[in-house]
Amino acid sequence: MTGSKKRIVIALGGNALQDSNGPATAEAQLEVAKKTCEYIAEIVNRNYEIVIVHGNGPQVGRILAASEAAKDITPVMPFDVVGAMSQGYIGYHIQQALGMALAKQGRSIPVSTIVTQVVVDRDDPAFQNPTKPIGSFYTEEEAKTLMKEKGYVMKEDAGRGWRRVVASPIPQRIVEIDTVKQLCGSCIVIAAGGGGVPVIELPDGSLEGVAAVIDKDFAAELLAEQLEADMLLILTAVDRVALNYKQPNQKDLDALTVEEAEKYIAEGHFAPGSMLPKVQAAIKFVKANPGKKAIIASLSKAVEALEGESGTVIT
Amino acid sequence: MTGSKKRIVIALGGNALQDSNGPATAEAQLEVAKKTCEYIAEIVNRNYEIVIVHGNGPQVGRILAASEAAKDITPVMPFDVVGAMSQGYIGYHIQQALGMALAKQGRSIPVSTIVTQVVVDRDDPAFQNPTKPIGSFYTEEEAKTLMKEKGYVMKEDAGRGWRRVVASPIPQRIVEIDTVKQLCGSCIVIAAGGGGVPVIELPDGSLEGVAAVIDKDFAAELLAEQLEADMLLILTAVDRVALNYKQPNQKDLDALTVEEAEKYIAEGHFAPGSMLPKVQAAIKFVKANPGKKAIIASLSKAVEALEGESGTVIT
Repeated sequence: MTGSKKRIVIALGGNALQDSNGPATAEAQLEVAKKTCEYIAEIVNRNYEIVIVHGNGPQVGRILAASEAAKDITPVMPFDVVGAMSQGYIGYHIQQALGMALAKQGRSIPVSTIVTQVVVDRDDPAFQNPTKPIGSFYTEEEAKTLMKEKGYVMKEDAGRGWRRVVASPIPQRIVEIDTVKQLCGSCIVIAAGGGGVPVIELPDGSLEGVAAVIDKDFAAELLAEQLEADMLLILTAVDRVALNYKQPNQKDLDALTVEEAEKYIAEGHFAPGSMLPKVQAAIKFVKANPGKKAIIASLSKAVEALEGESGTVIT
Repeated sequence: MTGSKKRIVIALGGNALQDSNGPATAEAQLEVAKKTCEYIAEIVNRNYEIVIVHGNGPQVGRILAASEAAKDITPVMPFDVVGAMSQGYIGYHIQQALGMALAKQGRSIPVSTIVTQVVVDRDDPAFQNPTKPIGSFYTEEEAKTLMKEKGYVMKEDAGRGWRRVVASPIPQRIVEIDTVKQLCGSCIVIAAGGGGVPVIELPDGSLEGVAAVIDKDFAAELLAEQLEADMLLILTAVDRVALNYKQPNQKDLDALTVEEAEKYIAEGHFAPGSMLPKVQAAIKFVKANPGKKAIIASLSKAVEALEGESGTVIT
């Protein structure tokens, strides 16, 4: 790949790595990753230089569930380490699956995963109000013990039991950015998996992992800015951003200006934790890079979206 | 770092990442990694360009134990995926710990982990006689069920129960070698963790994970060859290679020629799975690179070993 190619940061949603109706095994996940990578290889085939950011929700959930269930046999893994484990796990699968899809096209491009730490602000207001549920369900009594012994924040979850919640702070800095920059162009880089392992900077400049979840769309946006990418491509399960989603009057959007997007956010059209962060990340990228664009599209119509035949383009 | 620096591939043994007498938590492991990285930072300080290969035995053991114990809650992870998870986990810890140790010296050098697949030969004779025990102990009945249902090879382990055994094949090719080469020199690279995730090449050129354990000393040796490293430095818990180890007539060795090393191997001086693969890897590196050297030394005397004041040098 050369510098003349357009550089795209691709954010892959949960549907790219797991069939929510299929078995929750790593083997089944690899099969989904293989299909996903057929689409990604098509993008590479259109002469784009790509960097991949993937989500990790279901995988982290499974690792944590196993670790918590086995707590009498081996100590529970801290949440930052679970995130790093998921980067190894998913990165490996994408390396293998994308390598296979590229080989089918007669291409041999290195695909590499960079284990990525992302700095968040310890004073991020998100830490005052943790909202992301992670791990298993507990009884009220167990929850109170965990709160006391481990300092966890636990909340009652819609009558299903108590669950640990962590903050979802805004990503500030990608620690391994120089490495990603150096590889970009000669290699397909998988970075900031799951939004990156969240770390805070201590006064002496060293880093410390924290229990938090960084939204992968925001991490992809930051990466796209820092790599001076030409485009941020957020791939998900639906073809387009929609107003009145799943209502009788649903209206799919081909294009959105930043102003329109902000108005629709204010009107509450986009679901938090789902379409909202995607639209917010798209807005942030376009605001920071006037003249560039962000596209939100479905994985299966990614190439069509790049050609303006599907997806929602934000300019 | 510039091209004029000597390049060293460092193989870190189990003692570098875990205190076998301490708690088996990830938090305790990070503290051990911090101490280890003080030594590594001293090597960097002496103006060497380094690449790190680490072991993953205890970590893989813990991930697998958790996964097997939680099998009624979430499916057991395949062994190749567990290896990839351990690369994320340990790589993240070394990135953080080494970053901290370098910062103390006023240095800011990127440290990055590359999730690494290593090709093994599907016809490697090791697959005919798996010897590496992994995971939990089972009853004979459970073992027979696993052999039947999952195709595992299970062996009775010295009266302690039945355990799965996997092959330990020879590494043939490092899939992500181009990426490591590109980064080497501007970045401290952590690669082929745990010897790499073992994969076999299918007839169509694609890769498939296999349940196997690649010796990390052999993987480090292959990496050192391919990176044209000036030296292979194998760090372990003892200061020197010894004859009649732990016998009244133990004799520590300052230096060994390839011929002497081969003779001592034939005489059975070195324990399989412990000092033997280290000496074998050292021999292989020196044979492939006449004039270069390999050193086997203790982590805590690594700098002394580089200056010829500790360790065993193989030439």
